Amino acid sequence: MSNKDESTFGVMSPSECHQLLGAGTIGRIGVVVDGYPLIIPLNYAMDGETVVVRTEPGTVVARADQTRVSFQIDGFDPADRSGWSVLMRGRAQALTVEDRDELIERTRATGVTPWAPGDRSLWIRIEPADLSGRRIKPGDDLQWSLGYAAYM
Amino acid sequence: MSNKDESTFGVMSPSECHQLLGAGTIGRIGVVVDGYPLIIPLNYAMDGETVVVRTEPGTVVARADQTRVSFQIDGFDPADRSGWSVLMRGRAQALTVEDRDELIERTRATGVTPWAPGDRSLWIRIEPADLSGRRIKPGDDLQWSLGYAAYM
Repeated sequence: MSNKDESTFGVMSPSECHQLLGAGTIGRIGVVVDGYPLIIPLNYAMDGETVVVRTEPGTVVARADQTRVSFQIDGFDPADRSGWSVLMRGRAQALTVEDRDELIERTRATGVTPWAPGDRSLWIRIEPADLSGRRIKPGDDLQWSLGYAAYM
Repeated sequence: MSNKDESTFGVMSPSECHQLLGAGTIGRIGVVVDGYPLIIPLNYAMDGETVVVRTEPGTVVARADQTRVSFQIDGFDPADRSGWSVLMRGRAQALTVEDRDELIERTRATGVTPWAPGDRSLWIRIEPADLSGRRIKPGDDLQWSLGYAAYM
């Protein structure tokens, strides 16, 4: 059985992935809870190549601190069956008062503001391990599940 | 520290979740690979309360056969910062020739057609363990990461 994930068809460049991440406001964090890969949408901002989100203590996202997570954004055009997806693998790191001032200031400067009001007291940084992106165009012999070669 | 996930604010009813799943065509499957929760968009169809997707042998999705997965759909309106998300936890089960005819026929009858051409020889059923959905409206004191009480 051939490894279909070795295909490089439709692969986006890292700079294109970063450009799409920089242009977006809503993404989805993946966290593993009880062996299940949960997918939770939330708004975000970038600090360089790091995704910054905010949450409250006690949430699923807060409890993902120091674990392997993912962050994903995508876009589709059902009319012509085209679309793209960018997926980052990384580690969730909650900002703490022990962090150096420069990191705290840079993180807060992203200005990410949750859609919901309330005290979002936790800032979570998703430090990237790797990043990949794919496009599918009409007629491409490509499937979304292909190409995450980094994840094999 | 209170468990913020116990909030029931913004919870969608099971029937509303099923209605949204039935109306959608693109979702995201979550699979755990190497401890990372990967998020992969793909098109789908429903067989009752079961999500049906197609893939090829050797893909990440194919290799998730018999493992814990999730399936997620969402929608947003950035203009007023509102949105919704439906998340199913379940088990991936590849259809095999050993399956009973009735199940095979029902699965194929969903007619799910991958956007990409090619031989999508595997049908994957995501048999639901549970299903939950959330809405966030402007002014809601609610966060996406809240409320997945089923996943605690």
